[in-house]
Amino acid sequence: MNIIVQKYGGSSLADPEKIKLVSERITLLSSSNTGVVVVCSAMGDTTDDLLALSHEISSNPSKREMDVLLATGEMVSCSLVAMALSERGYPAVSLTGMQAGIQTETAHGSARISELNPHRIIEELENGRIAVVCGFQGFTEDHELTTLGRGGSDTTAVALAAALGATRCEIYTDVEGIYTADPRIVSDARKLIEIEYEEMLELAVSGAKMHPRSIELGALFDVPILVASSFSNEKGTLIHKEANMEIQNRVRGVAADKNVSKITVRGVPDKPGIAAALFSPLAEANVSVDTIVQNASADDLTDMSFTVSRSEHESAIALVESIISDLGFKSVSSENNLAKVSVVGTGMQNSPGYAALMFKALSEAKVNIHMITTSEIRITCIIDEEAVNRAVQSLHKAFELEKE
Amino acid sequence: MNIIVQKYGGSSLADPEKIKLVSERITLLSSSNTGVVVVCSAMGDTTDDLLALSHEISSNPSKREMDVLLATGEMVSCSLVAMALSERGYPAVSLTGMQAGIQTETAHGSARISELNPHRIIEELENGRIAVVCGFQGFTEDHELTTLGRGGSDTTAVALAAALGATRCEIYTDVEGIYTADPRIVSDARKLIEIEYEEMLELAVSGAKMHPRSIELGALFDVPILVASSFSNEKGTLIHKEANMEIQNRVRGVAADKNVSKITVRGVPDKPGIAAALFSPLAEANVSVDTIVQNASADDLTDMSFTVSRSEHESAIALVESIISDLGFKSVSSENNLAKVSVVGTGMQNSPGYAALMFKALSEAKVNIHMITTSEIRITCIIDEEAVNRAVQSLHKAFELEKE
Repeated sequence: MNIIVQKYGGSSLADPEKIKLVSERITLLSSSNTGVVVVCSAMGDTTDDLLALSHEISSNPSKREMDVLLATGEMVSCSLVAMALSERGYPAVSLTGMQAGIQTETAHGSARISELNPHRIIEELENGRIAVVCGFQGFTEDHELTTLGRGGSDTTAVALAAALGATRCEIYTDVEGIYTADPRIVSDARKLIEIEYEEMLELAVSGAKMHPRSIELGALFDVPILVASSFSNEKGTLIHKEANMEIQNRVRGVAADKNVSKITVRGVPDKPGIAAALFSPLAEANVSVDTIVQNASADDLTDMSFTVSRSEHESAIALVESIISDLGFKSVSSENNLAKVSVVGTGMQNSPGYAALMFKALSEAKVNIHMITTSEIRITCIIDEEAVNRAVQSLHKAFELEKE
Repeated sequence: MNIIVQKYGGSSLADPEKIKLVSERITLLSSSNTGVVVVCSAMGDTTDDLLALSHEISSNPSKREMDVLLATGEMVSCSLVAMALSERGYPAVSLTGMQAGIQTETAHGSARISELNPHRIIEELENGRIAVVCGFQGFTEDHELTTLGRGGSDTTAVALAAALGATRCEIYTDVEGIYTADPRIVSDARKLIEIEYEEMLELAVSGAKMHPRSIELGALFDVPILVASSFSNEKGTLIHKEANMEIQNRVRGVAADKNVSKITVRGVPDKPGIAAALFSPLAEANVSVDTIVQNASADDLTDMSFTVSRSEHESAIALVESIISDLGFKSVSSENNLAKVSVVGTGMQNSPGYAALMFKALSEAKVNIHMITTSEIRITCIIDEEAVNRAVQSLHKAFELEKE
């Protein structure tokens, strides 16, 4: 059987009318020799509403209970989508993360999938039913509910596509694909027809709307991923391996992310093991550290800066403050009003000219650079939040991304 | 360990402030040698809201999907209660029906508990945590989600109390206990301090707010059940075995229920097996038939009337119409605007005077009686819906229930 996995985001499922439209779209695919697996996010702003509700109860709710609370959002949307499909005459069945066999580790709130046993899904497909699977959620060995972290439904969809040997994973959202930059910031941003996993991964990490783990999984299991709008019939962007040669040789896009906090530890003894001593406790507390920069040291003391997402800023600061005296650091400071901007493209490999062009463009736009990091296919600058839009606009223009 | 089970209804959990008040009440009980198990219904009108949502999608949604949808309501309330308890410094953990070991049969929407394995609850109590269990829901052998039917959280609470050998099951709701009649109808209705299971069972079936299956379970496993208000500190009503002798010898209360439809099948061949042929298909379709009356027959043909709840009226009519020609019945008719009114009390056993007094009171109040049924401790009349209030008032007065 030819299997297709489709994932629908919350904005595509925001109300009963939208759910009916999505069910119509799903049934277009359904035929005797195609098995359709649908992965749903929670309806509209449900997840935010549930978060707000929990914060009325507790300023720091347990992550385990948050997972129980948030997992309900996808159960609601999936049962309604299954009802809508049945109403159109297409037998369908909703499946929770547990029923779909999505086993995870126990890190509540950001669990990773450890094992996928989709036998129930296969059984339903073989019986001619559409399987409607709750995205974002899983379960542990001990039958605890877990969630995969914000945007985790993308990961659910790609993981299922990989486990089921699906032909394709289609991610439906409220944008028409992947653009050279955010069209709300850059008016002549261009939709890409295709992009490689690696490039998409860098764009996703740098702020484009796609869960990075889903791209990693897609790359690992070679699952072609189509990102398209659920509100139109425009062809979206296909993320796959080895895109056309003609697109290899240039910057593919500009990404920005305003969710950046920078923490600086000053007077760090410059000796082996000190970085591990600083970052191990953060890793143990599941604080995800992004960019790390260590300044050159003069008097055997050095400064170390790193960025975390704003939601993890407070817990990171508290952790670092609890260990600075043990480790002999002098002080900790932080900045919250930062953002990052990146240019991404496999064509950048071993081509130093791109970095120079980026810094020149930012300088001309009067954007101050706080930190710089690079990967093989990406250059990222940490800048002031207020400068993000003009940074993205100047980079899009400097790299001529509006041109095919 | 001394175990107490407390159940809170939706009105007690309607918003974050009420949830905090409930959590305060729960912690009053908690001590080193008392294990507390809390069973929660869905917050406020959540269940009705979810039902309305499903009806925007489908006029006749699958019962399986309704169970998935509705089960989310209790997951939300339980996770929030667990958060509120933790916030007050009392470790707590929410448990879904599955995690609490509440296994059921597969009749979606009205599943019965088939097995209860509360080992996870016991483990949590032994670790000093309050277990907050989702009421109303269970799971089948095949890991399907089920619900126990409207008001099923009462059943969850009493079943858990029985399985855990709890000292007491406390049902907290928005009324202060069980009354001799609905205080909104009878101004001098009196709160009962205690009542026997059997009497309560008849009152519950006859419309008082308590899930009848929970009373049956309480009687079967001899679990004392306290019904009280979560909004006050008034002593509620204790439902238990062998209440005081002094209350044995009289009518205990008047109950009314407006949720009654009557179906009459005319021209039924008066031969053995015909009742089974009519009611077996209804039972198989999970239609719950209440009062059944068969009129005396003249010419080997008889009329048979029975009542069902209004929500099951349409499916019952459709079913009966599909079989009347096979069974040789002449016609089917139905009435929707009916209600039932009952007087209940163990003191009524073998005392025909009570029935006479009931009929006299109803007659004086100009209430027309459509059907009459009796049990050992109850007399029920099916009457017009518009006459309910004056029927209840006249019966309460006739039996002098306002007096201690």
